[in-house]
Amino acid sequence: MSNYQFKIEEIIDQIRSTEAKIVGLQFPEGLKIHATDLAREIEEQTDSLVVISGDPCYGACDLSDKEMEGLADLLIHFGHTPLPIDQKIPTIFVEAHYQLESLKILEKALELLKGKKDIGLVTTTQHLHLLEDAAHLLEEKGKKVIMKAGTGTLKGQVLGCNFSAVQDLPVDAFLYLGSGNFHPLGIKLSTKKTVIIADPYLNQVRDIDEFADRILRIRFARITRASEAEKFGILISSKEGQSRWELAKNLKNMISEGGKEAYLILLDEINPPSLMPFMNLDAFVVTACPRIAVDDSKMYEKPLLTPQELEIVLGMRDWEDYEMDEIKY
Amino acid sequence: MSNYQFKIEEIIDQIRSTEAKIVGLQFPEGLKIHATDLAREIEEQTDSLVVISGDPCYGACDLSDKEMEGLADLLIHFGHTPLPIDQKIPTIFVEAHYQLESLKILEKALELLKGKKDIGLVTTTQHLHLLEDAAHLLEEKGKKVIMKAGTGTLKGQVLGCNFSAVQDLPVDAFLYLGSGNFHPLGIKLSTKKTVIIADPYLNQVRDIDEFADRILRIRFARITRASEAEKFGILISSKEGQSRWELAKNLKNMISEGGKEAYLILLDEINPPSLMPFMNLDAFVVTACPRIAVDDSKMYEKPLLTPQELEIVLGMRDWEDYEMDEIKY
Repeated sequence: MSNYQFKIEEIIDQIRSTEAKIVGLQFPEGLKIHATDLAREIEEQTDSLVVISGDPCYGACDLSDKEMEGLADLLIHFGHTPLPIDQKIPTIFVEAHYQLESLKILEKALELLKGKKDIGLVTTTQHLHLLEDAAHLLEEKGKKVIMKAGTGTLKGQVLGCNFSAVQDLPVDAFLYLGSGNFHPLGIKLSTKKTVIIADPYLNQVRDIDEFADRILRIRFARITRASEAEKFGILISSKEGQSRWELAKNLKNMISEGGKEAYLILLDEINPPSLMPFMNLDAFVVTACPRIAVDDSKMYEKPLLTPQELEIVLGMRDWEDYEMDEIKY
Repeated sequence: MSNYQFKIEEIIDQIRSTEAKIVGLQFPEGLKIHATDLAREIEEQTDSLVVISGDPCYGACDLSDKEMEGLADLLIHFGHTPLPIDQKIPTIFVEAHYQLESLKILEKALELLKGKKDIGLVTTTQHLHLLEDAAHLLEEKGKKVIMKAGTGTLKGQVLGCNFSAVQDLPVDAFLYLGSGNFHPLGIKLSTKKTVIIADPYLNQVRDIDEFADRILRIRFARITRASEAEKFGILISSKEGQSRWELAKNLKNMISEGGKEAYLILLDEINPPSLMPFMNLDAFVVTACPRIAVDDSKMYEKPLLTPQELEIVLGMRDWEDYEMDEIKY
């Protein structure tokens, strides 16, 4: 089943032992193409009926337990480790391990880590199973690998909204194993240290600095533009793991005290069409997933800010103290 | 506030009398542009904090009570009459009346109703307040106007999923006051009688027959194509008022008994991107809003069927017995 391994036999054993009559399956976007194959296998090998969650899924923050409540007896959530949130129905979290052919990309990365001895090794959920081998390889090459678990994350694991596993880690540099720039950006901004990306998908190693500079320039432009805003929309997620209602109310108060208008807007999916009816507002603050304001910035006509960026706009934080937004449970 | 009237003073009185601390507002798409104005007025005139539902809203079937639960003490839902569904938080339904400059379009419609004496007058929620005047005008012109309430609908009211107010009405023809073709199509297919549209937005009167013929040809093509399908996705809505779980399970059994595969897929929003991961399936059956399969048909690569159309595909219903899908509470 492609490069992902689902441990189907273990899943079936667990379903049998729970005697669930109706089993919900939930996958992040990249794994959803396997949904019907897994559903068929479960229905053939157990007495359960399967219902697949078809909604977009961005993380364990975005569990379909609320939607499955009353339908399914058991939810199997693939691809993410659990967050400390109560689930409305019994939920099994199944990490989907991405199988790499080799860890050679790490040797390539060593070229960019010359002169750095103590290395913080970091990755995302689908590569966590590779960390032990990766650390071993780096240590054979003379590095000292330092990792820790974060608050709500495993050893060496970062989420797009949680960089606690790298904060205050006494290392000379970080080595990020995985794809994309958002997580390494977060590591960079959370630690100010060198961050090298070993990207096995592109077979490429790179430093995050250039990307981080570009993003910071864009953020600065958004903040500048939002400084002229008179009316703000504060976007609140109805996804349990992304809901920051108290923060949203505080931001509304902060904006009102500054003599400007603020409106609380509750949304499940934040995307450009969903903001179209609110184009009379000048800027938006996202209290939902911290990635939205930064990653999707170019899709939006009006500036989208993180809560920390709003503080800069309102003169309550200095630009020099720019911080990534995180969701702390 | 444009052509819609919201009865803001009544709303504010009701909020005061409930002493709601946090008030949720929900609007259909066309009214959402008024959301922030109403929110400001409520916050200025009461002690309540307002939170606006920003998600798309397609009807009273699509109430944001589940999302607002735990946040708001009171939900004000605009633009739709209530359905017989329990709400998770106290909810006030506010019809949004669309103000027409005149009912002259009805006189134009009379030209297409020559020779028809008994007329069934029908409309949608935003024009219900016009029905009395409209009936009066028609009767002055010598017609007899016949209307009844449906199961879950008011006198002369149809919904996209509920045509009970026109079924078995002893009339010679129907006159639909409003825009769009979907509702008149439903009246036509539910009654087989002449249906004339008086569209005050386009200032146009027309017969539904040509549109109905075109839609039926498209439906026939979809059914024919789906007859070759081996794998079906059965789409179930997680919106309370659109959820037909028992129907979905029955359809899955029907398909399986026919020796084909069927997968249950739970969705909040049904749109082409949400079906992308399921392109290994050959056809989809929509147990959610009945409009989706028919109205949005052209947006989808694979055939989307109503439950009744699936019955035709499986040889359990004749094409001659084609029926619109309805959600009956």
